[in-house]
Amino acid sequence: MSILVVGSLAFDDIETPFGNSPDTLGGSSTYIALSASYFTDEINMVGVVGADFTDEHFSLLHSRNIDTKGIQKVDNGKTFRWAGRYHYDMNTRDTLDTQLNVFADFDPHVPEQYRKSEFVCLGNIDPELQVKVLDQITAPKMVICDTMNFWIEGKPEELKKTLERVDIFIINDSEARILSGDPNLVKSARIIRAMGPKILIIKKGEHGALLFTDNGIFVAPAYPLESIYDPTGAGDTFAGGFIGHLSRCGTVNDLELRKGVLYGSAMASFCVEKFGTDRIASLDLLEIEDRYQSFLDLSRTEG
Amino acid sequence: MSILVVGSLAFDDIETPFGNSPDTLGGSSTYIALSASYFTDEINMVGVVGADFTDEHFSLLHSRNIDTKGIQKVDNGKTFRWAGRYHYDMNTRDTLDTQLNVFADFDPHVPEQYRKSEFVCLGNIDPELQVKVLDQITAPKMVICDTMNFWIEGKPEELKKTLERVDIFIINDSEARILSGDPNLVKSARIIRAMGPKILIIKKGEHGALLFTDNGIFVAPAYPLESIYDPTGAGDTFAGGFIGHLSRCGTVNDLELRKGVLYGSAMASFCVEKFGTDRIASLDLLEIEDRYQSFLDLSRTEG
Repeated sequence: MSILVVGSLAFDDIETPFGNSPDTLGGSSTYIALSASYFTDEINMVGVVGADFTDEHFSLLHSRNIDTKGIQKVDNGKTFRWAGRYHYDMNTRDTLDTQLNVFADFDPHVPEQYRKSEFVCLGNIDPELQVKVLDQITAPKMVICDTMNFWIEGKPEELKKTLERVDIFIINDSEARILSGDPNLVKSARIIRAMGPKILIIKKGEHGALLFTDNGIFVAPAYPLESIYDPTGAGDTFAGGFIGHLSRCGTVNDLELRKGVLYGSAMASFCVEKFGTDRIASLDLLEIEDRYQSFLDLSRTEG
Repeated sequence: MSILVVGSLAFDDIETPFGNSPDTLGGSSTYIALSASYFTDEINMVGVVGADFTDEHFSLLHSRNIDTKGIQKVDNGKTFRWAGRYHYDMNTRDTLDTQLNVFADFDPHVPEQYRKSEFVCLGNIDPELQVKVLDQITAPKMVICDTMNFWIEGKPEELKKTLERVDIFIINDSEARILSGDPNLVKSARIIRAMGPKILIIKKGEHGALLFTDNGIFVAPAYPLESIYDPTGAGDTFAGGFIGHLSRCGTVNDLELRKGVLYGSAMASFCVEKFGTDRIASLDLLEIEDRYQSFLDLSRTEG
C-alpha cells in the first residue's frame, strides 16, 4: 500500500566522540522514506528544500524508488540545517544550531496523485502543518504521527487537535512523560491514548520500545550494540521500518504491529552504525531479515 | 536440587511516597530464600541474626519449608538494620542508616548437612565471606553470586577472587559499568565474563534484564507496572526465582536460563507490589504461572 511521508529534509552537522560529519543529508522524512523503501516502492514524499539540495540528493531518493514530486524546491532559499553534538554515552545530545531556512515558510501541498495514499506518516513537524496535510488526504487508512518536546511544550493545544485524527502515535519516553504529565509509562500511555491514537509506541532508546493497543502491551528489545556510531535519525528510521512493514503486509492487527515494531527496531539498529543515512541507504533485504531474526532471537524462550 | 542461600537477614525501615514500613523483615537471603521456595523445598539458609529475630520470623521461613539450621542467633546482639527512603520515581533511593550489628562479626559456618548443596547462592555480602562459604562446600554444581557497588568499590581485588569461582553472576547495570569501567553494557559483559562467571545477568530495573552466555544474549522485558509500591528486595527476589527455576528443572542450559530470568522477573514484579516480603511470602503457584505467562506474552510475536 502507498505511503505518504511528510516531514523535514535537512542537512545536519553531526559531532560524535567518533568523529564529525558535516553537511550530512538528513531530516525526518528522509530517514522515514529511506527506511520504508525496503518494504514498499510506493512512497511519496512531501517537503521543502533549497537550492543546495542538488540532483545528487534527489538521485539518492530516486535510487530507492521514492517519489519526490511532492518536494518543493525553493531556488533562492537554503535547506533546513541542524547541528548537534553527541556525548560519550550517546544518550544525550546538544543542539548547537538550528536554521529553519526554507522550512520557515513551508506550506505543505499534497499533489493530486498523492491524495489517495493509504498510509499517511506525519514526521516531526509543526502540528498545525500536520493538520494541513491531513485536510488534503481523501480517506487515509492509517495516520501515523511523530512529534517532539518542542511541539509538546510549544503548541500543546494544536498537537492535541492533530492527535484526535491520528491512529498510531510514536513518541519517546521523556516526551510521553511531558505530554501526559505522569512519570509512569503505563499511566502515560492510558492518558495519551485517550487523546486519540488507539495505538501508541513509546520508544526507550537503548532500552527498546513499548507498544500499547486495546489488546495489551508488547515490549520490544533493543539490539545490544557494542558501539553506536551516530544516533541521528534512529527514531525516524524506526518509524519508517514500522510503517513499511504494515504497508507491505497491508494488515493492521496486533501481530503485525508487533512485527512492525521489531522491523522498525531492526532498521534503527542499522541506522546508528554509520553517520547519517550512510547505512540505511545501502542495505539489502537479506541483512534486514537477518537482523529481524536476531531481534526475534533476543526474546526467544522456545527451543 | 538443593540450594544453599548465604546472605543478610535484616530489619528494614522503609519510606516511600506511598507510606512507611518500619521494622520490616528483609535482607538479601530472606528475599532469595522466600522467592526460591515456590520452586523447591530444599532450601538451606546460612546467616546471622540477633535476639530481636523472634520465633515469629523463623516461623515465616519455616512455613515456606526453608531450613534455618544454618542461621546463627546471637542472643546478646541485634539483627542487621537498614533504613532507606525512595523517591517519587522509585528508581533512586537514599540510605538513611545502616547498622551492621551482629553482621559485623559474622563468620559463616556451613553446617555439615548443607555442604553437599548443589546450588550455592551467595547473596550480597563481603566477598571475603563469600569465599569463606565456597571453601566449605564439597562440589557445588552451580555458584550464583550477587554483589553491590559498596564491594565493587571497596574490595575490588577480593571480589575478583570470588568471581573466579562463580558460574553465574547477577549485577545491575550501574554496577556492571563500575566493575568493567566501560559504559557500554555489551562490552561490560565481555569484560566481566572474562573475570570468571560464564553466565552473566545484568538487571536494568524497569527496563528488564540482559542474560549473557557463550551462545548469545537474551533480553528479558520488565512487567509494565502501573504502580510500584516498594522496590526493596526486588533484585534478591529476582535471584531467588531465577535459581529456584534452575533448581526445579535441574538443568542449566540456555533455554532454562532464559526461562529462569523470566521466572525471576515475574517474582520481582510481585515483590514490588507490597511492602517488604508481604507479597512474596503469600503467593500461590497459580498466580506465579499466570505472571510468567504474562511475561511470555509481552514478547510474543506468534499468533
